[in-house]
Amino acid sequence: MADILYPRMAVIGCGLIGSSVIRAARRAGVVGEVAVADSSEAVRTRVAELGLADQVTGDVAEAVKDADLVVLAVPVLAMESVAKAAAGALKPGATVTDVGSVKAKVSQALQRAVPDSVFVIPGHPIAGTEQSGPDAGFAELFEKRWTILTPLPREDDPYLEAVQRLADFWTALGAHVDRMDDKHHDLVLAVTSHLPHLIAYNIVGTAADLEEVTRAEVMKYSAGGFRDFTRIAASDPTMWRDIFLANKDAVLEILGRFTEDLQALSRAIRWGEGDKLFDLFSRTREIRRGVIAAGQESPEPNFGRDRERH
Amino acid sequence: MADILYPRMAVIGCGLIGSSVIRAARRAGVVGEVAVADSSEAVRTRVAELGLADQVTGDVAEAVKDADLVVLAVPVLAMESVAKAAAGALKPGATVTDVGSVKAKVSQALQRAVPDSVFVIPGHPIAGTEQSGPDAGFAELFEKRWTILTPLPREDDPYLEAVQRLADFWTALGAHVDRMDDKHHDLVLAVTSHLPHLIAYNIVGTAADLEEVTRAEVMKYSAGGFRDFTRIAASDPTMWRDIFLANKDAVLEILGRFTEDLQALSRAIRWGEGDKLFDLFSRTREIRRGVIAAGQESPEPNFGRDRERH
Repeated sequence: MADILYPRMAVIGCGLIGSSVIRAARRAGVVGEVAVADSSEAVRTRVAELGLADQVTGDVAEAVKDADLVVLAVPVLAMESVAKAAAGALKPGATVTDVGSVKAKVSQALQRAVPDSVFVIPGHPIAGTEQSGPDAGFAELFEKRWTILTPLPREDDPYLEAVQRLADFWTALGAHVDRMDDKHHDLVLAVTSHLPHLIAYNIVGTAADLEEVTRAEVMKYSAGGFRDFTRIAASDPTMWRDIFLANKDAVLEILGRFTEDLQALSRAIRWGEGDKLFDLFSRTREIRRGVIAAGQESPEPNFGRDRERH
Repeated sequence: MADILYPRMAVIGCGLIGSSVIRAARRAGVVGEVAVADSSEAVRTRVAELGLADQVTGDVAEAVKDADLVVLAVPVLAMESVAKAAAGALKPGATVTDVGSVKAKVSQALQRAVPDSVFVIPGHPIAGTEQSGPDAGFAELFEKRWTILTPLPREDDPYLEAVQRLADFWTALGAHVDRMDDKHHDLVLAVTSHLPHLIAYNIVGTAADLEEVTRAEVMKYSAGGFRDFTRIAASDPTMWRDIFLANKDAVLEILGRFTEDLQALSRAIRWGEGDKLFDLFSRTREIRRGVIAAGQESPEPNFGRDRERH
């Protein structure tokens, strides 16, 4: 059993990520007491049934009272109001972190909301599934996935120690930990997560709205590639609405690059420039190999989804 | 053991699909002798080592001689030259089919190439993985996946009987079989397969070419969604080059719809129209449920790729 890093942890918002943090932290033995606050009565009931926490409440202040670590796991545009609700009850010296997919705006919101006596250390575990809610979480979710911390530009020892402790926490949960400037994080994630989701939502929406091809046809014949996109287009709508609104500038910048490239590709098809197509299609194969070599993907064909069919 | 539907089957091109057809047909017991022609010496050697065929040759005419069923499994723009190479050796009454992802252009090419004494019945099994070559194939590939036949507009009994026999063949391989007009097939597949591949190739290309975000970062942090796209962007470059060139009109039409929708989505982000985003993101969730209900996708989170982590 590892040492307890935080005698009391409060998790605000107990969905896929919040509940996975609890499961992973308990399994690792790095937290003592666990408190959960969630605004949904249905979620609170389920969290109690699952035995995920020592205390389950609808009151954020009650949950964070005496907590050494506060993990905000709500949609990014809800972070500020949740942090404000916590502010008055936070213990001096507590660490306040989050798991949101946008960091610059969330970091500013947290700094505005909470007193200087606590350590604000924004964070983002790059892990998840398309499912939502406390039943969807599991202890292994963060294993071998990266968690990025975007600490404030502070050099004082207590803050640096708090950052190191939080990094140790994520390491104990099985994650690899990186530190990064929050603006760079937001640009990187715009590429590796936000644009992919935007494109997936868009293509599924386009396919659903055609007159010439029915929805039934789209579903029946989806094994030709389309079905892959439906997975991430099934992610939580509130969470993703907030991400696009909170990371607007980076998303629009990367989307602009994508659109430019798509126009060039479209032009190559129109003019029958097979060599250009072949060159691109060969280059992209290497990226797949790199993703697998980086340990971030199953090497099995079709993500292993056909495993039982072989 | 089922009845033998074709005493001799010739498969031209023994990659992922060709080799899976052989494995599935042998398992089902619906073919007698199997002949393979492939232009690659490496593939021929491997096919012989795997014991996939009774005859392995580089000569198309030799393979199709006396064959009752000829399956062309080469990139779509190679179909015509392969069919021409077969033409003189085809047995009257033989069925000539293919597995290409584009049907109108291929159907015309096959009709130009082969004599009227054979039955041309274009086909397309909607199944595959991102891998290539005879080692990548497996007998279960077509199970519960749709195979679309696009028969010629002929009403004579011998032709209709040949179509029924080919449908029975695919059913024996585990597939569901549909019949469809070739132009409609090409529009449907532009939506469910060609556009998804184009978008995936494009996004992976965009991500690989950014200055502000390194390739190493793209790979490390790909679990946020990007990695999904790398799978189909790892598909065979020659095959996909040919598909886009051969199905240009339908692909550009659907791409135009996608681009319009993407511009509207981009505008909603720019103007902070959260309701519009939320509406789209909620609708797309239903499509995922439909795809799973249609039996075309694993219901497990993350395609089941995390199965071993739970």
